[in-house]
Amino acid sequence: MAAPINVWDYERLAEEKLDANAHAYFAGGAGDEVTLRENVAAFERRKLRPRVLVDVRTVSAATTVLGTDIELPVLIAPVALQRIAHRDGELATARAAAAAGTIMCLSTAATVRPAEVAAAAPEAARWFQVYVFGDRSLTEELIAEAVENGFSALVLTVDVPYLGRRERDLRVDFKIPEHLTPAGDIFGLGFDAGASWRDLEWLAGHGGPVVVKGILTAEDARLACEHGAAAVVVSNHGGRQLDGVPAALDALEEVVEAVDGRAE
Amino acid sequence: MAAPINVWDYERLAEEKLDANAHAYFAGGAGDEVTLRENVAAFERRKLRPRVLVDVRTVSAATTVLGTDIELPVLIAPVALQRIAHRDGELATARAAAAAGTIMCLSTAATVRPAEVAAAAPEAARWFQVYVFGDRSLTEELIAEAVENGFSALVLTVDVPYLGRRERDLRVDFKIPEHLTPAGDIFGLGFDAGASWRDLEWLAGHGGPVVVKGILTAEDARLACEHGAAAVVVSNHGGRQLDGVPAALDALEEVVEAVDGRAE
Amino acid sequence: MAAPINVWDYERLAEEKLDANAHAYFAGGAGDEVTLRENVAAFERRKLRPRVLVDVRTVSAATTVLGTDIELPVLIAPVALQRIAHRDGELATARAAAAAGTIMCLSTAATVRPAEVAAAAPEAARWFQVYVFGDRSLTEELIAEAVENGFSALVLTVDVPYLGRRERDLRVDFKIPEHLTPAGDIFGLGFDAGASWRDLEWLAGHGGPVVVKGILTAEDARLACEHGAAAVVVSNHGGRQLDGVPAALDALEEVVEAVDGRAE
Amino acid sequence: MAAPINVWDYERLAEEKLDANAHAYFAGGAGDEVTLRENVAAFERRKLRPRVLVDVRTVSAATTVLGTDIELPVLIAPVALQRIAHRDGELATARAAAAAGTIMCLSTAATVRPAEVAAAAPEAARWFQVYVFGDRSLTEELIAEAVENGFSALVLTVDVPYLGRRERDLRVDFKIPEHLTPAGDIFGLGFDAGASWRDLEWLAGHGGPVVVKGILTAEDARLACEHGAAAVVVSNHGGRQLDGVPAALDALEEVVEAVDGRAE
Repeated sequence: MAAPINVWDYERLAEEKLDANAHAYFAGGAGDEVTLRENVAAFERRKLRPRVLVDVRTVSAATTVLGTDIELPVLIAPVALQRIAHRDGELATARAAAAAGTIMCLSTAATVRPAEVAAAAPEAARWFQVYVFGDRSLTEELIAEAVENGFSALVLTVDVPYLGRRERDLRVDFKIPEHLTPAGDIFGLGFDAGASWRDLEWLAGHGGPVVVKGILTAEDARLACEHGAAAVVVSNHGGRQLDGVPAALDALEEVVEAVDGRAE
Repeated sequence: MAAPINVWDYERLAEEKLDANAHAYFAGGAGDEVTLRENVAAFERRKLRPRVLVDVRTVSAATTVLGTDIELPVLIAPVALQRIAHRDGELATARAAAAAGTIMCLSTAATVRPAEVAAAAPEAARWFQVYVFGDRSLTEELIAEAVENGFSALVLTVDVPYLGRRERDLRVDFKIPEHLTPAGDIFGLGFDAGASWRDLEWLAGHGGPVVVKGILTAEDARLACEHGAAAVVVSNHGGRQLDGVPAALDALEEVVEAVDGRAE
Repeated sequence: MAAPINVWDYERLAEEKLDANAHAYFAGGAGDEVTLRENVAAFERRKLRPRVLVDVRTVSAATTVLGTDIELPVLIAPVALQRIAHRDGELATARAAAAAGTIMCLSTAATVRPAEVAAAAPEAARWFQVYVFGDRSLTEELIAEAVENGFSALVLTVDVPYLGRRERDLRVDFKIPEHLTPAGDIFGLGFDAGASWRDLEWLAGHGGPVVVKGILTAEDARLACEHGAAAVVVSNHGGRQLDGVPAALDALEEVVEAVDGRAE
Repeated sequence: MAAPINVWDYERLAEEKLDANAHAYFAGGAGDEVTLRENVAAFERRKLRPRVLVDVRTVSAATTVLGTDIELPVLIAPVALQRIAHRDGELATARAAAAAGTIMCLSTAATVRPAEVAAAAPEAARWFQVYVFGDRSLTEELIAEAVENGFSALVLTVDVPYLGRRERDLRVDFKIPEHLTPAGDIFGLGFDAGASWRDLEWLAGHGGPVVVKGILTAEDARLACEHGAAAVVVSNHGGRQLDGVPAALDALEEVVEAVDGRAE
């Protein structure tokens, strides 16, 4: 294949390069993948309104997110198990984020520890994603290591009380390769299905702003604000958790309205 | 084929395992199968609104239908001629319903008698589906046997004054295998095309609640309530009777509004 | 191929049996065939609202059209050049219409004369379709023969000031076979592109009701009524004249409203 | 391939006849080509409302555009680099425009000079399309040559502050063949990304009406009128500049309303 020039090329490259186990994990969605497809289709339905004869000699997409200046207004979502795809895994991602001038969010289920990421790319802006496991001590330990190593915000994933039913994983009988040990094993450890809005306040007590990831409704957006969220990520977990929910892009408007400026 | 993991896999398995005669009968719909396809497509158009950070340590889909407690809020529709698909036919279905904690509705056109189902799975919650044949004595005989054997509700199918034009059946020249004898032969016996709302009252006289199956309009939903229906099943007979009618899911809203709590 | 059981089967049979020249003529539409496809798709978009528990022991689709009682509420449109498809052509169609209890409309461009149709199926209800050619004497002659032979209505086709651009005909270089001589040759004779609503009145002077065929707008439906049309046929000529117009079914509502009972 | 009978045939012919380099350039759009496809799909969504029994013996699509009478209400857009497709390039196009009775708009990036076009087809109505390059002297030189050679309007393209990302060009590594030298090299010369509405007034100072090409919003349509545009071309550059914008046809209504007769 010639050099990739767009995201579809990279998807095809991934299909060529990854083994079936890894490809199923990264490419698949939950259930019938209706939401997975909708996430993309929603972008095609939106139309831009281009303005002309505007001075664009100097253009910039730079912005500030929770006090961090970034060049690229696309943050890197917390993707688990990156070393399944490539030996360098999350460390390479952190270096890429730094190079692109954006924030990397490290997953609790990463295949490297927060301290390693900080050491590999000390200049990278970084957030840490938190899963609340039944045994909260592991969660506490990872948060402490992240805070200590300069992760400037904690991102609480709220759409995984149980792991989504990802049928591609079932078809390949997905397994984490034996040589890899995720910090938080999303397959082996139990999530705290009793997590509640109070846990948002608990998390805020660890210092640094808390981002709530996985909101799709105005009702929950309001609750997030009321419980101290500094920012809200409108997300359906890439269509990997509950199939049949709206495209993230389609849920954006009602969440923005509900938040009404109280959170980013 | 690997072990089936979703309903589509089971559909494909059915295509592999069943002979052409049986597959045509179970898989086909009426006419051009527009409604058959719509029944599925309607589900894909609906979007769920997921709420987050709700305590889901203990979750249950249990509910009560016409006084019967069930664990699984999916009832088993009255599918005719099940022994065409498998030797155990309706008896296996009754045992499965019991195991899953739901209600099986036995078809008048079943390949076993009500008493056999009751004997095979005495613990299974069960309803009996009624076709009104021109010769009402057979209908009466089957109802009596069902009531005597613990079938707790009678389900009147109202969308079959005549059998639908199922073109897949025509293409294979569908025949009930000779070794099977349905209680009520939907191909050999004539339906009572003069059945009316008064028959609902007649049926209610046999004891037990009466469910009206096959309602797609608010007008008929109101009539069902006025004539004593204990419950209404919004259904287009799986797209097997009149092609060109709405998906059952799309008709649900107007029926629920019209019923307005007067029936389940 | 097995015996045909629906219209799609007949379409496929036609493709098998007809030579390329004839098939292009009967199957093709104008331009990109957008309207041709829309005519079918419009039916799939409509949903029926079935009512249940209505006495349907005796059902009938019989109705009366311009004073003629028919059993089947589907009239046979004026299709030209039927002997291209089969030796018996319009005569077989007339016999079939009589057998089915409906009206056949004979095309001006038929491959038999009105008198022959009347002789072959004297019991068939029949209308005669009129094209207004530049040389009106041929039109007059055909109308006189039709009226004399019991054609009970004249159907003025109003959507052919020029013949549509039918690209399938262009691709096969469509030719009327030499042994056939249409009464009115739509390819060889020029249409009267100056035909106007006054011609409707002229046609009404020949005795018998006049039907206007080819109306798609409320504006023209009103004009048809004002100029004495006894009936209006909402039609886009089967998608064969001007591509890009609405499906006939989609235009029906506005025409019915505009006619408001003044014509059939 | 048989003789082409519609635009799709010509597209297929182009694919056969052109080398990969030229075909990529003429056939491709920007990004994922969503807008490229939408431009065509938008036409299929519109429905014509045909009126009947109107005297159409004499019909004409003739009209007047900026004072020039034309027979064919389809103008020839400024397509660059036409000699890549055929040796005669823009000269043949000019002769075709004259023969068809319409206006050819010559591109700044043409492979012939304005004077050559005027000499080759002196009777052709012609406009000259203007790109504002960073080095404005070339722009001035071309405009002067065009005005001197009877190009009766200047068309300012406003949707190319930077060239669109055309992925087909990237895949073939598009190159202008060495023997061709466009007047204004859109690949080699830098556009003036600081061009503004004031440049419209500057352009108007060269004599002749100024047409603004590339408007998709009501806001910009109003600005164009206020800055002296004689006409506005609603265009997304054939889907070749910014992908994700509406079909030109879909943007037409809001622009027409905003212009409100102040410009053509």
